[in-house]
Amino acid sequence: MVVRTSSSPSTPTPALQADPARALERLREASPLTQCITNAVVTNFTANALLALGAAPAMCDIPGEAGMFAGIAGGVLVNLGTPTAEQRDAAREAVAAGTPWVLDPVAVGALPVRTALAHELLEARPAIIRGNASEILALAGLGAGGRGVDATDTADDALDAARELAAHTGGTVAVSGETDLIVDAGRTARVPGGSALLTKVTGGGCALGAAMAAFAAVVEPFEAAHAASAVWAVASERAASRSAGPGSFAVAFLDELAAVQPHDLVGRVELTR
Amino acid sequence: MVVRTSSSPSTPTPALQADPARALERLREASPLTQCITNAVVTNFTANALLALGAAPAMCDIPGEAGMFAGIAGGVLVNLGTPTAEQRDAAREAVAAGTPWVLDPVAVGALPVRTALAHELLEARPAIIRGNASEILALAGLGAGGRGVDATDTADDALDAARELAAHTGGTVAVSGETDLIVDAGRTARVPGGSALLTKVTGGGCALGAAMAAFAAVVEPFEAAHAASAVWAVASERAASRSAGPGSFAVAFLDELAAVQPHDLVGRVELTR
Amino acid sequence: MVVRTSSSPSTPTPALQADPARALERLREASPLTQCITNAVVTNFTANALLALGAAPAMCDIPGEAGMFAGIAGGVLVNLGTPTAEQRDAAREAVAAGTPWVLDPVAVGALPVRTALAHELLEARPAIIRGNASEILALAGLGAGGRGVDATDTADDALDAARELAAHTGGTVAVSGETDLIVDAGRTARVPGGSALLTKVTGGGCALGAAMAAFAAVVEPFEAAHAASAVWAVASERAASRSAGPGSFAVAFLDELAAVQPHDLVGRVELTR
Repeated sequence: MVVRTSSSPSTPTPALQADPARALERLREASPLTQCITNAVVTNFTANALLALGAAPAMCDIPGEAGMFAGIAGGVLVNLGTPTAEQRDAAREAVAAGTPWVLDPVAVGALPVRTALAHELLEARPAIIRGNASEILALAGLGAGGRGVDATDTADDALDAARELAAHTGGTVAVSGETDLIVDAGRTARVPGGSALLTKVTGGGCALGAAMAAFAAVVEPFEAAHAASAVWAVASERAASRSAGPGSFAVAFLDELAAVQPHDLVGRVELTR
Repeated sequence: MVVRTSSSPSTPTPALQADPARALERLREASPLTQCITNAVVTNFTANALLALGAAPAMCDIPGEAGMFAGIAGGVLVNLGTPTAEQRDAAREAVAAGTPWVLDPVAVGALPVRTALAHELLEARPAIIRGNASEILALAGLGAGGRGVDATDTADDALDAARELAAHTGGTVAVSGETDLIVDAGRTARVPGGSALLTKVTGGGCALGAAMAAFAAVVEPFEAAHAASAVWAVASERAASRSAGPGSFAVAFLDELAAVQPHDLVGRVELTR
Repeated sequence: MVVRTSSSPSTPTPALQADPARALERLREASPLTQCITNAVVTNFTANALLALGAAPAMCDIPGEAGMFAGIAGGVLVNLGTPTAEQRDAAREAVAAGTPWVLDPVAVGALPVRTALAHELLEARPAIIRGNASEILALAGLGAGGRGVDATDTADDALDAARELAAHTGGTVAVSGETDLIVDAGRTARVPGGSALLTKVTGGGCALGAAMAAFAAVVEPFEAAHAASAVWAVASERAASRSAGPGSFAVAFLDELAAVQPHDLVGRVELTR
């Protein structure tokens, strides 16, 4: 039996509306358990960013525990920044649990171990892939990868690659840049704004991937990705306005993540088909 | 031969007095070498907290070095937050050295690898066990464990479990909560106060376990545990009073740890039999 | 055939001049990719310090990737603070790439695994060795090593040991202390100043080693080492002047690293033969 709802003649095309405010409300009500298998550089900042946002972080990343934990977590992040052998096995366990999960393919393309793992994990269909343009291009097989976490392309350079990956996984792909770009099978969102200081602090992007995993516990992946981007844009702008440099920016960013209110996100996401 | 001192008719019951001020003086004089085998999320914050307190941290956590190092350290912390295979072996080495050590059974109960290790390590008799109520209940076999580092019970819910564990190990058990609870075979201490912001920063509790290990190098375990709790209460209250959110709180907390003076701790610990 | 240049009668002895200002200019122009195989405690602070300085950090530290990455990096840091088995193999790969690399022999002498590795890696001729006096003495076989990262000797105590090591490797040796000491085959530099608060924050010295690796990508090793020390002295003095304790100092130090200008370094380095 096939039930057709969204495309039945009597159903008008649903209005294309983003509601990051509702997404943030739901996240703060649920405080979703968010599992992070992430790199050693950013694990502290990521946990603090999730706590400030209102989620409950758990950095459970060893084999024999990661899969079981993913079964009770609301969202899972797999970030390939420093993929030790134990983390690679933990990631394999975790993505098999059926919980919505985010792939952050740090420096994929340039480096063989993580590149092979990223392609293997893709088959477990990440709900969201988040990277910079170089990484998304490399993951789609259309680019050579960046130098580590540096993006050498703009987000829009990766639009076709993002669409291709989204078609392949059936999920959402988010490209971080001056304007963040988020696509799924039929929709495109753009989130402008934010602060360049986020690129002067390690973990700004990695923690954004974790935030997407937290949001994916409470709303569908496309909405999760753009809601997280909208929070990042607002909090980073406010933090930048009262910072003397990258050190004080990172501190202020955590304060502002905790202070962001749902209504601050209204109008932050531009949706198109 | 049995020597009975505390209950001999001619010996008056010793006055039940806490002296966290003296404990902090001794810690600052000795600057005890404090070895931490701890999780990847909090290792930086823990080392900075120990330095601010006046101790000398050393995160020596690989097999082949951890046991030898524990032999020269004044106190040892074993925190099970992200227990890699190497850390598990390092912990086994370190607890065999005979140095007073603290067990922080993060998320025990819920996850099999660390739960098995925690039970194994218990047989090496930790001088202090520090956890939230869910963890203490789970370790005593009386609860199912929390969701990661979240406490889902209050400290007093774990009073019986803490007493049972203390009787089993012959050591001290500290339960973190709105009011911290510390018990050993015959004594109970409570440390009220502190700030809820400590739970909004990753590592607040983990670093407290490290502080207990540092204090255990200079005073007996029961006193070490409540002195550390008293320092945490004072520093977190002061930090909270001048913070705009969790980011600035974590920074201010380190400043306040360095600024706490022994006399600030007077009256902070409530002792009962 | 032997070509003698520096000591030929017709060539005047080159003026002994330090130019850390030019070194910083070149670093900021090139933003050199700087690979760090470093300890878990300081990896976040190190990455943020490199970003603030103007370099591009990449914490690529697993076997199968580290060697390849070292081939494209401009400078490499190998810090032995928490040397897991994977990091030890990664270090062996990385130092074979031919890229200028810095050895930071944390706590060498006292602990067997890292001590054996340090001696093995020495044969790959580090461009720069950076440590405190105890570590340099221990590495040269002239001392017993410190207690972890604590220096128990002054920089000048290690002058002979530093010269011996420099002769052995053909590179530069930097000894951190109240006045930093930098030597190579024929030259000695001293960088006074800085702030003692740097020793109250974990990673102050480790991140300095990373900065030397970044500078080594753009200038020769001896200049790289003293230029990095000069930046550290200026930034730490300024940060200390506006800090309430070690927590706020660490934050301010990152801000000041980003704010340091080349002309601020003029006169900071004292050179002698």
